[in-house]
Amino acid sequence: MNKFWSETVQRTEPYVPGEQLDDPTIIKLNTNENPYPPSPKVTDAISRELDHKLNLYPSPTTDQLRNEIATYHNLSKDHVFVGNGSDEVLAFSFMAFFEPGKPIRFPAISYSFYPVYAKLFNIPYEEIILNRDFTLPVEDFFQSEGGVIFPNPNAPTSVYLELSGVIDILENNPNQIVIIDEAYIDFATESAASLIHTYENLLIVQTMSKSRSLAGLRVGFAMGNPNLIEALIRIKDSFNSYTLDRLAIAGAEAAIKDTDYFTDTIEKVIHTREWVTAEMKQRGFHVLPSQTNFIFACHYNWIAEDLYTNLKKDGILVRHFKKPSIDNYLRVTIGTDENMEDFFKKLDKIMNTTKSRN
Amino acid sequence: MNKFWSETVQRTEPYVPGEQLDDPTIIKLNTNENPYPPSPKVTDAISRELDHKLNLYPSPTTDQLRNEIATYHNLSKDHVFVGNGSDEVLAFSFMAFFEPGKPIRFPAISYSFYPVYAKLFNIPYEEIILNRDFTLPVEDFFQSEGGVIFPNPNAPTSVYLELSGVIDILENNPNQIVIIDEAYIDFATESAASLIHTYENLLIVQTMSKSRSLAGLRVGFAMGNPNLIEALIRIKDSFNSYTLDRLAIAGAEAAIKDTDYFTDTIEKVIHTREWVTAEMKQRGFHVLPSQTNFIFACHYNWIAEDLYTNLKKDGILVRHFKKPSIDNYLRVTIGTDENMEDFFKKLDKIMNTTKSRN
Repeated sequence: MNKFWSETVQRTEPYVPGEQLDDPTIIKLNTNENPYPPSPKVTDAISRELDHKLNLYPSPTTDQLRNEIATYHNLSKDHVFVGNGSDEVLAFSFMAFFEPGKPIRFPAISYSFYPVYAKLFNIPYEEIILNRDFTLPVEDFFQSEGGVIFPNPNAPTSVYLELSGVIDILENNPNQIVIIDEAYIDFATESAASLIHTYENLLIVQTMSKSRSLAGLRVGFAMGNPNLIEALIRIKDSFNSYTLDRLAIAGAEAAIKDTDYFTDTIEKVIHTREWVTAEMKQRGFHVLPSQTNFIFACHYNWIAEDLYTNLKKDGILVRHFKKPSIDNYLRVTIGTDENMEDFFKKLDKIMNTTKSRN
Repeated sequence: MNKFWSETVQRTEPYVPGEQLDDPTIIKLNTNENPYPPSPKVTDAISRELDHKLNLYPSPTTDQLRNEIATYHNLSKDHVFVGNGSDEVLAFSFMAFFEPGKPIRFPAISYSFYPVYAKLFNIPYEEIILNRDFTLPVEDFFQSEGGVIFPNPNAPTSVYLELSGVIDILENNPNQIVIIDEAYIDFATESAASLIHTYENLLIVQTMSKSRSLAGLRVGFAMGNPNLIEALIRIKDSFNSYTLDRLAIAGAEAAIKDTDYFTDTIEKVIHTREWVTAEMKQRGFHVLPSQTNFIFACHYNWIAEDLYTNLKKDGILVRHFKKPSIDNYLRVTIGTDENMEDFFKKLDKIMNTTKSRN
């Protein structure tokens, strides 16, 4: 602490992202990145953009990218806001729709950035305890005072809430904003985007970091009623006129247009996920039903933290959360089939050579 | 307005950046971009980065880029913070060092984003009237309640304050942060970076958008005492773990290392600026002494807004501010020699064929 720090800095409790190790031999199954590269059309588009005008500011309105995203989701440009990763879009959304003094609600087990934003912007919150099977207790989100935010599918649990549950939450918060953080939705049944025309209190946030293989490019977006989008634009234009650089805009446009590559990549990841889930179950793991690009699993006979530590020693990085009620779970990102074969080889070695707790 | 908008959205008065027209035949002399492309080493570095790992998150700590910037300025990494353009760095600085309830001070004629940030973060402010020659009335910044921020050189006036004046302001605000926004400093005499070891209340903000020809890449940075840098990191890590994408990091590292290209570009711009200044004076313009990559000029016999409008009709875009005490000035970005010859050709045509006000 320091005498020059504002009260805002003093109350922050910064988010700690998953480890990013420099060692290129490590197999990274810890931050839910896509193991496949982005579409070749993305790198082509960026290469073309690189040849001219990097000395000129990018578009402050990003109209063309917003149009492409809107087209993909059967919306219009006025329903779409883009930002520097979905984290920035979420931060702007906290500023735009939540108020100090009015508690918001989110799941107790959820994306751990939500309480960080709440502290930064001084917004009180209630953490809703999940059901024992890690599903969302839908009614506990009804009649919130300050609004609701939750990921669908939830993270780090991987569990998806059907649209009927989403609708229940929307209808029982008619005067509050409900933010659905769909970071992993492309690996799941169905987005709530089709509800945007019906519910003026619905804001959906998505990212290009997972399904579009662009974690390194930092592009996220929000979709909702044009009134909500206008609020986000006002915040952004009071904060940073140009949040997306020229290369990110060009790459994101190409990514959203290449639906064939996108569909192929999603299919590959889901295929591997189903295989990994079956293999984990065979080894006695309890695996939550995943609709994401990761699985969340625990073993009754093994301590998750020990598995995490031993896997790390063997060059495989998965994620373990030291948090009540999930501290015996591991979150494992779905890599390529080759990555996952390596993972099982190391896992089997550990389970064969170290002692279980029973 | 909308019932879902937070009080924060309701009090915003968004910044309006200079016009960005789609017409590629327009000569843009309105947003102080560098007319020269970035160093070829920048595009090479980005091309190399493009070939791998765009599916993986960038470095959350950006240590390598911070090290390169520190080396250039004879500082250590702990003195440097990087962000998504200097506008984001300024926004984080407002959050980190200024408080609601404690008025800050900035010049009445200055970067028009300051009052926008102040409204967004609910920080009261006092606007200090400049001297008649547009220099800063240094003593009026002494003993501020909540801190001080000003550009040096000032924008849109182009006028530079000597370091002795900067020191006076620092020494007379021992318990407040003094932010010096050095967006244009590479075109001026000397940065205040050498004062960082002496003044723990000094924060300097710079950008790669102007002198490094990278407006399209969105990279800015702050330099100051490690305690201040830590505050900015806490804000950033409570807002967005990864504010710079992989390509921006790679490009910015290459830009800061290529000092030869940098020096050449600066020299060319300054050479053109001096020539343009002399030509403007020959035509009867009053031109403020510029230490930036633009000039700020007025003519006693011509209405600035008319010149702006007529130049625009002829394909030359300059900037005119409809604000008291500067509404008869034009801000003209220094382009290439060829750009400026075109500018004078059009300007002479207008001055020869339209009527002056006398």
